[in-house]
Amino acid sequence: MSESSEPFEPGRTGSRLVGAIEAGGTKVVCAAGTGPDDVRDRIRIPTTAPEEVFKQAVEFFAEQEKEHGKLEAIAIVTFGPVDLRRPGSESYGAIMKTPKPGWAGAHWLTPFRQAFECPVYIDTDVNGAALGESVWGAAQGLDTVVYLTIGTGIGGGLLVSGEPVHGLLHPEVGHMRIPRTEEEKKAFPGACPFHGDCLEGLASGPSMQKRWGVPAGELPADHPAWEVQSDVLAWACVNLTCILSPQRILFGGGVMQQEHLFPMIREKTLERLNGYVDVPEVTQGIDQFIVPPGFGQDAGLMGAIALARKRLG
Amino acid sequence: MSESSEPFEPGRTGSRLVGAIEAGGTKVVCAAGTGPDDVRDRIRIPTTAPEEVFKQAVEFFAEQEKEHGKLEAIAIVTFGPVDLRRPGSESYGAIMKTPKPGWAGAHWLTPFRQAFECPVYIDTDVNGAALGESVWGAAQGLDTVVYLTIGTGIGGGLLVSGEPVHGLLHPEVGHMRIPRTEEEKKAFPGACPFHGDCLEGLASGPSMQKRWGVPAGELPADHPAWEVQSDVLAWACVNLTCILSPQRILFGGGVMQQEHLFPMIREKTLERLNGYVDVPEVTQGIDQFIVPPGFGQDAGLMGAIALARKRLG
Repeated sequence: MSESSEPFEPGRTGSRLVGAIEAGGTKVVCAAGTGPDDVRDRIRIPTTAPEEVFKQAVEFFAEQEKEHGKLEAIAIVTFGPVDLRRPGSESYGAIMKTPKPGWAGAHWLTPFRQAFECPVYIDTDVNGAALGESVWGAAQGLDTVVYLTIGTGIGGGLLVSGEPVHGLLHPEVGHMRIPRTEEEKKAFPGACPFHGDCLEGLASGPSMQKRWGVPAGELPADHPAWEVQSDVLAWACVNLTCILSPQRILFGGGVMQQEHLFPMIREKTLERLNGYVDVPEVTQGIDQFIVPPGFGQDAGLMGAIALARKRLG
Repeated sequence: MSESSEPFEPGRTGSRLVGAIEAGGTKVVCAAGTGPDDVRDRIRIPTTAPEEVFKQAVEFFAEQEKEHGKLEAIAIVTFGPVDLRRPGSESYGAIMKTPKPGWAGAHWLTPFRQAFECPVYIDTDVNGAALGESVWGAAQGLDTVVYLTIGTGIGGGLLVSGEPVHGLLHPEVGHMRIPRTEEEKKAFPGACPFHGDCLEGLASGPSMQKRWGVPAGELPADHPAWEVQSDVLAWACVNLTCILSPQRILFGGGVMQQEHLFPMIREKTLERLNGYVDVPEVTQGIDQFIVPPGFGQDAGLMGAIALARKRLG
């Protein structure tokens, strides 16, 4: 059930050099290394057309091979929706329907498989982050973990029994629905084009900006926006706790740079669970139950390194 | 990731005789057999004091051994909350805080370990049902499955990558929270003593009875109660789909004997996902995505047999 039953050795440096890609909506970060304490080089590529991104990433890894020797694997953790349904199928690793220009159908595995001899692995950015955090970060040693990113969108990665969850496709935690008061509904109908007031439609950076008129980062800590935001995110914690029974919930992403949110979310989560999930990890350990990621903005990239190393065995 | 990678051979009869216990709030069913097509005998014991239940169950299995030979394992699937946190710990397998008289602290594993030489396994009733249905029932061949029971309470079992999910303790799916209209909130505040209008507080049998004044089974198919019920259960499907990305959702339990509920829940789930989870299994296959269990009221008991056989390997 736990990492320790796997041959994968989770030390912070390793003997096997791997390539890591974290693909986000605005930038794609590539790095080569053996672990979080041994990242040799990294580049940031703007998320323009996929061909351009792939070209620059392939060039980067080719240079890394010249400098440091052969890569033993490349792992990609990407924004979704990405087809992870049938490993080995033609569409496995391709971006699905998306409003991002040029990216629908873009295939993450092909360019790297063509350019390099090593195996190429893929998962979602948030599943990657959950994995990386469980190996070296803020969820170390745990095997059932949720990683939520609250940024341009809201995404959630799930690790269960030490393995990233895919199921039918992959989780879309950002689109869960939660209770709202009538007053709140009148104040803001939500900004998700599919669902209105789902989690993402209420609590993503752009949703907050739409409601309050300024970027989330510019709202002062005593602005009423944060009461609303912690309300919404506490409901997410309640539903995640009841549905998945995770050992820890991690909140990353730009909006969560507002550290004053954490105590507010914790308090409201406890209040709403109302003693029902009666284990000390929640009732007495809420400060360690809902936490920021250990790797901060690097959670996804470290997740890609963890994924490559885990799949190599 | 799937059953096929395990040594466990999922045929409907097997060569290894096992004991199975499904423990519910009103009755405890015990059976001995090798698979769903080879159940030798079974008994129903009323869920009175634990000592009495354990005594009758031990006697039943002792008789089965006399008649059919040694049991190779016993598996228990039980109502919760049950301590499944640390296999091997003293409290592993004990019922936790519960309003059921005499059951708080009752230890499911001890009496059977003392009376029989074989290994004794345990999981929740709903995790068991999810497992059994994935092996032989309505979720055959799938490895990421939700089993919900809508009865005296609401419970949910999760199978991910073919393994029952425990995490911190075990899922408490019945206590997720969902959107409600102001009209609905005024009409019924919900009946859960912890959360008011959580899923269980709205849609369990006793909650329905509290709201509508008669047992759910006595409400005619065109009663407005079923519109409300399917609304609530469709929200549950939306949240389960977004959070876990299951390949199938199974609804069992007494209240779901009302088969007219299924098409209503399916339609509302599709409407609310609004095309977002854009895979044919949902958009075109909703009739196979939300289904009743193949084993009906025996889903838990077959799950116990499946659990015993799986753990034996």
